[in-house]
Amino acid sequence: MRQRHKPWADDFIQEHKDIFITNAADSKLDWTAVFGNSNPVHLEIGTGKGQFITGMARQYPHVNFVGIELAKSIIVSAGQKVIEAEQANVRLVLGDAAGISRLFDKDEVAAIYLNFSDPWPKNRHEKRRLTYHAFLEQYENILSGGGELVLKTDNSGLFAYSLVSFSQYGMTLKNVSLDLHAENDLTNVPTEYEQKFAAKGQPIYRCKAVFQGK
Amino acid sequence: MRQRHKPWADDFIQEHKDIFITNAADSKLDWTAVFGNSNPVHLEIGTGKGQFITGMARQYPHVNFVGIELAKSIIVSAGQKVIEAEQANVRLVLGDAAGISRLFDKDEVAAIYLNFSDPWPKNRHEKRRLTYHAFLEQYENILSGGGELVLKTDNSGLFAYSLVSFSQYGMTLKNVSLDLHAENDLTNVPTEYEQKFAAKGQPIYRCKAVFQGK
Ligand SMILES: C[S@@+](CC[C@H](N)C(=O)[O-])C[C@H]1O[C@@H](n2cnc3c(N)ncnc32)[C@H](O)[C@@H]1O
Ligand SMILES: C[S@@+](CC[C@H](N)C(=O)[O-])C[C@H]1O[C@@H](n2cnc3c(N)ncnc32)[C@H](O)[C@@H]1O
Repeated sequence: MRQRHKPWADDFIQEHKDIFITNAADSKLDWTAVFGNSNPVHLEIGTGKGQFITGMARQYPHVNFVGIELAKSIIVSAGQKVIEAEQANVRLVLGDAAGISRLFDKDEVAAIYLNFSDPWPKNRHEKRRLTYHAFLEQYENILSGGGELVLKTDNSGLFAYSLVSFSQYGMTLKNVSLDLHAENDLTNVPTEYEQKFAAKGQPIYRCKAVFQGK
Repeated sequence: MRQRHKPWADDFIQEHKDIFITNAADSKLDWTAVFGNSNPVHLEIGTGKGQFITGMARQYPHVNFVGIELAKSIIVSAGQKVIEAEQANVRLVLGDAAGISRLFDKDEVAAIYLNFSDPWPKNRHEKRRLTYHAFLEQYENILSGGGELVLKTDNSGLFAYSLVSFSQYGMTLKNVSLDLHAENDLTNVPTEYEQKFAAKGQPIYRCKAVFQGK
């Protein structure tokens, strides 16, 4: 995602400590205290500019949404959307998904969304793909029983890789779509990337998978 | 597949008893005797006009190929190709895949190919899809350890359905391609349908899956 330098980003984040979490790695958070309720927690990894997480938060007001995003200049755009929508059930973590299992207790997350994750097409970058088995281990740890991992992407290479990675890890596929927008799923909340690629006529892939014995 | 009435089909089949097997359901065949050697046996279901099976037989002369096809008027075209190519490692079974596990001993087949199987898109026809779990049970029975089930199709609905069906049955995906022809797999032998759809620019999907504990 294109990043513009935003000199005001640090101040903006400081001013909105109610939405942004910047010290997540320091100690495990008490999410019930953070949200002020014990609603189920859904996690989006690589939140980008926040269209998906704010749309989902509006659609599911009794779910708490946590978005994690690596880039400061991007997460502030998500923050602006959350503030504008006055969405009390969203928190944004500035950080790297590589440490995601440190942010949650075992079985604490009810669903995980990977939206248009960077494809890292080169074989030698396999470990960086968010569906690499070392990431799946972390997701398995924090997902609760029956909790779904939902992947959406336009990238056929990443999608094919991920299906095999899930399967080889022992996960079970619950649903696969090779052309999500042809299905007219009215509950689907499109991300920024999704809108852009769908407008170009590219198929959007989605799959939902669960861990075995979960 | 379009079927023309072929009044000569019966005679043609009778004249080529060395290639066609028409009484397969009567009693279990001794495939080592049929082929005159004990090379591994690969099975194609819904052989159509035989471009795939003859191409594979040429590419892998030390593999025995069995094709099963329901339609008499279609299987004769496959037979003509086999005769023309003088391919001694192909046999064609006129019959219904619904009884496939009666044709082979347990673990007797080293690979199964499903090529552009009829998609049966309506939910109420799910049981007819060749990747429905009742078919998978039969394939599991006849496939040997590590034996792959390979599905190629242009149909996104059937492909998505099959991935989920395999996964829910407990199979493991070994390889998935969402655009086979973009990959320039030089070992790929295209079928008639594959050529037709690829020429129109449609993506060809392929996956390879194995049964667990096999
Ligand atoms: C291609 S963009 C997609 C953005 C958004 N999900 C969408 O669909 O419009 C990928 C996003 O993931 C973020 N990202 C990549 N790797 C990450 C990681 N390890 N942890 C957190 N965010 C990451 C990037 O900064 C970028 O904003
Ligand atoms: C769509 S055509 C594809 C033909 C060929 N495999 C290709 O890719 O060009 C499907 C073929 O499967 C055959 N078929 C359908 N159901 C079958 C069954 N239950 N047993 C055997 N053959 C079947 C049909 O007669 C038809 O020839």
